Amino acid sequence: MKFGGTSLADITAMERAAGLIAAEAKRGMALAVVVSAMAGETDRLDGLACKAGLLDDSRNGRRDYDPVMAAGEQISSGLMALILRRMGFDARAWQGWQVPILTSGDHACARILRIPENPLGQAIDGGEIAIIAGYQGVSDEGAITTLGRGGSDLSAVAIAAALGAGRCDIYTDVDGVYTTDPRMVPQARRIDQLCYEEMLELASMGAKVLQTRSVGLAMNSEVPVRVLSSMMAPQGDNPGTKIIGEEQALERQVINGVTADFAAARISTLGVPDEPARTALMFKALARENINIDMIVQAPSRAPGAANISFSLSEADLARAQEVLAHLSAEIGYDELHADRSVTKVSVIGIGMKSHAGVAATMFQTLADENIKIYNITTSEIKISVLIEAQYTTLAVQALHSAYALDQSPSPEEGR
Amino acid sequence: MKFGGTSLADITAMERAAGLIAAEAKRGMALAVVVSAMAGETDRLDGLACKAGLLDDSRNGRRDYDPVMAAGEQISSGLMALILRRMGFDARAWQGWQVPILTSGDHACARILRIPENPLGQAIDGGEIAIIAGYQGVSDEGAITTLGRGGSDLSAVAIAAALGAGRCDIYTDVDGVYTTDPRMVPQARRIDQLCYEEMLELASMGAKVLQTRSVGLAMNSEVPVRVLSSMMAPQGDNPGTKIIGEEQALERQVINGVTADFAAARISTLGVPDEPARTALMFKALARENINIDMIVQAPSRAPGAANISFSLSEADLARAQEVLAHLSAEIGYDELHADRSVTKVSVIGIGMKSHAGVAATMFQTLADENIKIYNITTSEIKISVLIEAQYTTLAVQALHSAYALDQSPSPEEGR
Repeated sequence: MKFGGTSLADITAMERAAGLIAAEAKRGMALAVVVSAMAGETDRLDGLACKAGLLDDSRNGRRDYDPVMAAGEQISSGLMALILRRMGFDARAWQGWQVPILTSGDHACARILRIPENPLGQAIDGGEIAIIAGYQGVSDEGAITTLGRGGSDLSAVAIAAALGAGRCDIYTDVDGVYTTDPRMVPQARRIDQLCYEEMLELASMGAKVLQTRSVGLAMNSEVPVRVLSSMMAPQGDNPGTKIIGEEQALERQVINGVTADFAAARISTLGVPDEPARTALMFKALARENINIDMIVQAPSRAPGAANISFSLSEADLARAQEVLAHLSAEIGYDELHADRSVTKVSVIGIGMKSHAGVAATMFQTLADENIKIYNITTSEIKISVLIEAQYTTLAVQALHSAYALDQSPSPEEGR
Repeated sequence: MKFGGTSLADITAMERAAGLIAAEAKRGMALAVVVSAMAGETDRLDGLACKAGLLDDSRNGRRDYDPVMAAGEQISSGLMALILRRMGFDARAWQGWQVPILTSGDHACARILRIPENPLGQAIDGGEIAIIAGYQGVSDEGAITTLGRGGSDLSAVAIAAALGAGRCDIYTDVDGVYTTDPRMVPQARRIDQLCYEEMLELASMGAKVLQTRSVGLAMNSEVPVRVLSSMMAPQGDNPGTKIIGEEQALERQVINGVTADFAAARISTLGVPDEPARTALMFKALARENINIDMIVQAPSRAPGAANISFSLSEADLARAQEVLAHLSAEIGYDELHADRSVTKVSVIGIGMKSHAGVAATMFQTLADENIKIYNITTSEIKISVLIEAQYTTLAVQALHSAYALDQSPSPEEGR
């Protein structure tokens, strides 16, 4: 079981979470529980650390950032263990170095390398509820490390994998993964089950309910994950969303979700001499700066022997990309460079796409019916993304949500 | 060097402390620095832990209190290391388990058992400034332990002893130990030097500047301690108070300090049948409840064959002591029991008392001149304490401060 910060806002919220843990324990479950820092604590500590001197970006400079940040989860693990003991359960707090959760030495963004099954497994087999501080580990030098934002999801999946747990339940402030953002589409529905690959795409595309890395780890280690609400009563109906392997899925929806990534941006270079070396120069220079580019479109320019090249990228990288290209304007030889922040990347995601034709056609027809212009397109085995003008985002998402019949509940499934 | 919470109130205060550390480093000192939690943090964490469930008083119940509390020092150690690195120094944060500071498993009040000289010593020899989280250690079971309130002083002295440090400087919000409380006696002066024994008595009698246990450890391990201000400029005059062995003291004041303990209380039992077994029963019952009693006076009662027995104790124990004695009223056979909270224990302390006659006479004469009645008296080799009515406390302390010539500076001492 993993509880996020909003489920641990204060002692009252922690007591509600403890009730959910107690209910599982009473069902006879052997439990490992991963906790995040209390809501707001990570931001508070990060603010202090930045003020103290996180300017130093060296590995040693960031080394002492990690004990500051890890303290947030240390506090909530101790508090949760105290609450459960008061309720009569045998609980114990575990810090990353105590488990130990062995990580690389990349401070503030460490990778989990290995979690020995013992002594944690022994304690749990002995009847203890293990309350594990998320987001943290220990390097082979014995230094406290942290895993980056959202790292407690990663801790939870890694511990579930190490213990061979039957399930990894991620408790959060929503009751599951939705077909799309309910603030945008009131008809959005909770999804009953998703494949890892679909969840990976949903998480990458901005569904904030699960950290992307943790989904990848769950997929690789085949840990069944469930996303569910921490606000429900312990005995209430709380099915959440199951995230499982493709082969375990009883029934596949063609499309399971529609996402909108507002943090997309677009750069267009007009009148680039149509020589492969120019294009290569452009994309090599961006790659050298670690700027990921996404959808590329090349079209003939009005000028003879020239092309217009446009691509999408993350808004956060836009200014740097403009700089890189401005610096190389002579070598690339473009006439004009346009940067556009007012674009959105809308995606439809579904593992069923692999075996269903016509998914792309439905998407293009739907957007055409709404007179929404598509700038760029990219596809993968289970996802189609298009770049559109930001002002049409809600219109596009609502239309696609209806077009793929996500407004209606799927046929009832028994025994799941 | 050790910095308390008020010296670490926020990042600005921590930067001032870092300036003092930097100044010592520039003088070529090899440095271990112990830090407390930021001001208010320990209270905040204790409040959360109590709310979570510190009601369980068992050893396992308190076990998970300690990771919560230790987080405060973990945060400030990381922040201080970040600040010093930003200033260009090679600093590193050390948690109790990393040093390791090996303690007993008595959670929330652990005793330090042993601090291996390495790897801490190696890191310092290698040029690093070690920033050590105070107040905490690790048990032989690998659990985080804490040392009780004021425990960072203990950490500092223990680490100084383990490293064979030439000095242990305790930075605080006052510029040294005073002859008495300056709020009570404006003529109070900073004391240049004190023997461990004197400091131990001063600390036990309510001078809050140093934790009592840390003074005892300094005495046993012969670590020279200095108490000084963290508010001074790094290059300014900041002599503080030196606390050293009796044999190192160049000149001994007869009396070095006058203290007033307002937390004293007094119980009188009147008309107790004058049989040793009755008195023994009374004090055994109190001892069984861990109630420390201090000054005992037995005087003949008006009733024939009976005595009045009065004793002083800590105000915190008063209610429990009354309960114990009420429960045994028949067996002890007293006529009346009076409890009095409005008493103060005033003490004069000085190692020179050992070789100077007339110290007690001066005390009694001074109080008699002010018409202050003495209820009870107790003496040790270097201390005389009297119990008086609380309303005369300031008058008594001021009169004694003058009578022992503490208002004037001692003759100037060279080379100290």
